[in-house]
Amino acid sequence: MPVPRPPIAYTAYRNATFPYPGVAADPHAPLATVVRMTDETCAVLRGIIERRRDVRAEFTGDPLDDAVIRDLLTAAHAAPSVGNSQPWDFVVVRDPDLLSSFANHVDECRQAYADSLTGERRDTFNPIKIEGIRESGLGIVATYDPTRSGPNVLGRHTIDDAGVFSVVCAVQNLWLTATAHDLGVGWVSFYRENFLTDLLGLPEHIRPVAWLCVGRVSKLQETPDLIRFGWNDRVPLDQVVHHDRW
Amino acid sequence: MPVPRPPIAYTAYRNATFPYPGVAADPHAPLATVVRMTDETCAVLRGIIERRRDVRAEFTGDPLDDAVIRDLLTAAHAAPSVGNSQPWDFVVVRDPDLLSSFANHVDECRQAYADSLTGERRDTFNPIKIEGIRESGLGIVATYDPTRSGPNVLGRHTIDDAGVFSVVCAVQNLWLTATAHDLGVGWVSFYRENFLTDLLGLPEHIRPVAWLCVGRVSKLQETPDLIRFGWNDRVPLDQVVHHDRW
Repeated sequence: MPVPRPPIAYTAYRNATFPYPGVAADPHAPLATVVRMTDETCAVLRGIIERRRDVRAEFTGDPLDDAVIRDLLTAAHAAPSVGNSQPWDFVVVRDPDLLSSFANHVDECRQAYADSLTGERRDTFNPIKIEGIRESGLGIVATYDPTRSGPNVLGRHTIDDAGVFSVVCAVQNLWLTATAHDLGVGWVSFYRENFLTDLLGLPEHIRPVAWLCVGRVSKLQETPDLIRFGWNDRVPLDQVVHHDRW
Repeated sequence: MPVPRPPIAYTAYRNATFPYPGVAADPHAPLATVVRMTDETCAVLRGIIERRRDVRAEFTGDPLDDAVIRDLLTAAHAAPSVGNSQPWDFVVVRDPDLLSSFANHVDECRQAYADSLTGERRDTFNPIKIEGIRESGLGIVATYDPTRSGPNVLGRHTIDDAGVFSVVCAVQNLWLTATAHDLGVGWVSFYRENFLTDLLGLPEHIRPVAWLCVGRVSKLQETPDLIRFGWNDRVPLDQVVHHDRW
């Protein structure tokens, strides 16, 4: 059923640079010094953040335009990174044989996990689908290159993990952008890193960080799967906020 | 100088739930099944992603309303997490003594890094400001709790780091939301984790993941600091994208 759009004051902005809707700019001053975000901008972002889901079962398999994939990668590539090292790579996987090999491996890891559970937890876990690797038809693998930007990455001498954390920021940029494009993303972590390294021929120093199933979806669930299936529940925000000291 | 706003078709949405601007919903169907994102939604998000900066020198020190801080934490708390474990905590630090102690520690780490550099790299690094801990007046420390959600976190048996990666997704949600609020965020990684653990009295099993300076800014730089100061440059997107195999 086609969804009616409300009247909007903007023309298409997909290919626009500034000004974005809800973003006011003084044309007489340098861009970033005067651009103001508005209540509307906050609301749009909040809508995207709340709408984002970790998708397993709802992929349709309809292929994506290269331009859309490019938009997702552009968003990822605009992430913050320690020492501006931009230590990520992205492998766009559409080869059905690769998808199938990875899905088979993930099935084995799923079984190993199921075998580690007992009683009620096992029964709760059994019906939960944990990946949509074949159904999405597209995997985007984000990897970490610790050698990017040379031997003395600014800000990584104290916290070496800040490098791989940068890749995760890129993943989250991609995920939110996919949500804004009305797409689903599912982060699969049921795999052994060395399997993925071999499957995709990653160089030895490159660490796979995430396999993201990306694709069109029939819908996005309103409630996260693991809550719907009774696996666990939301933690209240107040429970995780502290002031000054723990 | 006040910044003129363009005419917009929306009223204030800061406190709205759905519908968000640019988000069309069929009132006859369950929400998440029919909401459609639009070109405008994509453009707003892209504007926020491109505008986001890692801020050091531009904090004004003007205090933030509690409601704004709550919005940032709400966005962080809506991040994806492995097995829906929501393994984050947030310590909101405004005590000037704590800010000052942390800033002094970071200064020492900065000096140690500077001492590790030689020649041109050292000269390039010297003028670069690496934190705005005191000037922002607010630190939000994101931490990781590996015990959250019990002993068998779904999806972490193969990739244990998926837990801490969830915290980084929360950081990025917070960062983008702060940008939409016209605020600056600076992720400080020049510290030793055990110093921060002692300073904030974190329980032994809690890992500090990020110190985020958060606050109002005089402006956001159009070009990232490390590019402006000649530390390094952007990597072209095509250089980091691969297809099917590396």
